[in-house]
Amino acid sequence: MSNPASPTEFETVTATSPAVVPVRLGDRSYDVLIGPDLLRDAGRRIAAVAPGAACGIVTDTTVAAHHLAPLQASLDEAGLRHTVVTVAPGEGSKSYAGFAEVCDALLAARLERGDCVVALGGGVVGDLAGFAAASLKRGMTLVQLPTSLLAQVDSSVGGKTAINSPLGKNLVGAFHQPSLVLADTASLDTLAPREFRAGYAELVKYGLIDDLDFFQWLERYRGAVCGGGLERVEAIRRAVAAKAAVVARDEFETGDRALLNLGHTFGHALERLTGYDGTRLVHGEGVAIGMSLAFRYSVHEGLCSGQDAERVTAHLRAAGLPTSIGAIPGWTADADAMLDAMAQDKKVSRGSLTFILARGIGQSFIARGVVPERVRAFLRDELPPDGERA
Amino acid sequence: MSNPASPTEFETVTATSPAVVPVRLGDRSYDVLIGPDLLRDAGRRIAAVAPGAACGIVTDTTVAAHHLAPLQASLDEAGLRHTVVTVAPGEGSKSYAGFAEVCDALLAARLERGDCVVALGGGVVGDLAGFAAASLKRGMTLVQLPTSLLAQVDSSVGGKTAINSPLGKNLVGAFHQPSLVLADTASLDTLAPREFRAGYAELVKYGLIDDLDFFQWLERYRGAVCGGGLERVEAIRRAVAAKAAVVARDEFETGDRALLNLGHTFGHALERLTGYDGTRLVHGEGVAIGMSLAFRYSVHEGLCSGQDAERVTAHLRAAGLPTSIGAIPGWTADADAMLDAMAQDKKVSRGSLTFILARGIGQSFIARGVVPERVRAFLRDELPPDGERA
Ligand SMILES: NC(=O)c1ccc[n+]([C@@H]2O[C@H](COP(=O)([O-])OP(=O)(O)OC[C@H]3O[C@@H](n4cnc5c(N)ncnc54)[C@H](O)[C@@H]3O)[C@@H](O)[C@H]2O)c1
Ligand SMILES: NC(=O)c1ccc[n+]([C@@H]2O[C@H](COP(=O)([O-])OP(=O)(O)OC[C@H]3O[C@@H](n4cnc5c(N)ncnc54)[C@H](O)[C@@H]3O)[C@@H](O)[C@H]2O)c1
Repeated sequence: MSNPASPTEFETVTATSPAVVPVRLGDRSYDVLIGPDLLRDAGRRIAAVAPGAACGIVTDTTVAAHHLAPLQASLDEAGLRHTVVTVAPGEGSKSYAGFAEVCDALLAARLERGDCVVALGGGVVGDLAGFAAASLKRGMTLVQLPTSLLAQVDSSVGGKTAINSPLGKNLVGAFHQPSLVLADTASLDTLAPREFRAGYAELVKYGLIDDLDFFQWLERYRGAVCGGGLERVEAIRRAVAAKAAVVARDEFETGDRALLNLGHTFGHALERLTGYDGTRLVHGEGVAIGMSLAFRYSVHEGLCSGQDAERVTAHLRAAGLPTSIGAIPGWTADADAMLDAMAQDKKVSRGSLTFILARGIGQSFIARGVVPERVRAFLRDELPPDGERA
Repeated sequence: MSNPASPTEFETVTATSPAVVPVRLGDRSYDVLIGPDLLRDAGRRIAAVAPGAACGIVTDTTVAAHHLAPLQASLDEAGLRHTVVTVAPGEGSKSYAGFAEVCDALLAARLERGDCVVALGGGVVGDLAGFAAASLKRGMTLVQLPTSLLAQVDSSVGGKTAINSPLGKNLVGAFHQPSLVLADTASLDTLAPREFRAGYAELVKYGLIDDLDFFQWLERYRGAVCGGGLERVEAIRRAVAAKAAVVARDEFETGDRALLNLGHTFGHALERLTGYDGTRLVHGEGVAIGMSLAFRYSVHEGLCSGQDAERVTAHLRAAGLPTSIGAIPGWTADADAMLDAMAQDKKVSRGSLTFILARGIGQSFIARGVVPERVRAFLRDELPPDGERA
């Protein structure tokens, strides 16, 4: 993720010649294609990775209303039989019940082991359909067609799939790599602005982890990225390239893939304590607040300069994202509840917490053995005083 | 599986020096230990593969009544923290609901990624706990402590895990290898005779697949194997060695691992059409009838001699196992229903059936593209005439 393309370098991206990021994982390697109108061309490209396969499309009702018809037309054109399973939009579908529903619907359509599960939607659909594809007949082919910015820059790439348990987010799932990812950047035009901003938080994350240059690029081009056009494609391409590199190094998260969790330990706890209620907090907003907290906690621990933490929150705020717990409507939980919620996260090892902390922008690192008591003290200062809660 | 040990060769098998069969799968390799009283020694051995891990024991109420206490004592002795999740005995627990229940109970016990799921029971518990271990936090350590003969010779080895869907058996699951398998042959003493016989069917299977010599050995030593003692240990050792060899060649069943499904395509359909009702048909009985059908269908197709098919059914019958559909109490389904039930099996590819057929005892092979119409005609002859149904 070192050389930022100059505008002229990415002017050639079109539906027929999209940007391509290879994810190199030996015999599980695949390409991520990024560009406008890829959904209209999906049938041909799916047929190339799964010749003759029947397709079980999994989507949600909102996404279906906008993007299902062109996908179906394109599958028809490619001569691929297809069937559709539609779930309700929102985190609630990533449940045991949603999993059973999707699996049984795909089985009822008589999909066979060599057939293909096609996830058309945001991260919720991708994670749910992905876990179903991993589990059905112990593993079916999976194609990700991410339609939210968050899914395009993060969840559709890298093979993590999961559902939520009442005990916590993403606690039940599988590593199951897709065979192809098509990120149709034009599909983002129908995305609600709030959801676009939420995805933007994950874009920023890649800069914060290890790429100051990308962060600076975003500071400069944020308006253009949000406006659409080639800067948007380029931003997504850079994010995907960053993720692909990490995943290729550490597919099963035994090492530095954990860096991608920057902002997520705090973020997941926030989501949990707001009951996964998307009207109060969506995932990307939780990550935005979580990254802000991670930087401020790094300052609190004397690891990072206050200026860097300020610069992070200023950029997120400029993008319209929340950066403090006080911004969450109806927040009531205290520091103990936060600690408790974090203790159930996967990033816990033998009772001590693992956080992603930072020595500065682009200088994040895995901090194991973080002492809960110090986090508790930090959070007490962060939490809005009783009287001021929104 | 070539050299049958003479009795003197296996006289040394004891709790402290059990028979050991290595399963060679690169960095997923593990040992299967076979011998009496291994449960009493389990703590020490589990601690060796998962030092300091907390253990989430999954078992069923029947098995717990007999074998939980010694296991817990042994874990205590080894200083391993443990917790227990108990499900109802029987195939019904291998469901979406059972999966959610086991996952949530293990999460509630705050097991972490490096901790250990311990499956104590038959194939139902092994498959269910195995799928939970595969999925929890996207993969936890798994130890199999099989207590049924079927689980010791088959389901605990090789990494297949699954639950059932209303649409068919084992359709939702994962490949997840255990880190250790301890087959305590003394635990079989509490197994119901009918369940022991059901496991015996899977023992016979290994002879039928590719080892006439083992089949002959079983014809000679069946009484001793059923009676307990060293012949039993030796029979289990040979079966596990046969399975380990197949699994090492073809972990993900893209090739000849499918041979292990001998009798299972018919058998699963029989189980499905009897509503997985263990009072009418248990899994191993379905396999016994299924293997008999596979041999008779092979005769029907002119592939195998009638004498070999007769010899197979004679041996199964001598072991107290059913060998025809007519033996199932209350059977009513017709040939079409059988074909329909088989079409949902995983062993289906682009509409045509895959069966394991045989040219003789020890000469099984994968027959792809079996024409449904020919199977239907064969089954019409096999099915009991309306008036004679049990
Ligand atoms: N697997 C991973 O590696 C990974 C990484 C990050 C996040 N996630 C998961 O992703 C999920 C969040 O993803 P998300 O933010 O995409 O949520 P989402 O799937 O719920 O999508 C957000 C909303 O936008 C709608 N939407 C999506 N695409 C649209 C479009 N093109 N037009 C109009 N509406 C559209 C959806 O219907 C939904 O209401 C969380 O469950 C999170 O845990 C997974
Ligand atoms: N994963 C695989 O590779 C694989 C292979 C073959 C079969 N299977 C699965 O295994 C299951 C059948 O296994 P099973 O026959 O062991 O069934 P099971 O687990 O239901 O056990 C049979 C019965 O015996 C009882 N039991 C078990 N051990 C006992 C003991 N020591 N003392 C007293 N009672 C005991 C159980 O409570 C149960 O009632 C099926 O679901 C089948 O699909 C899986």
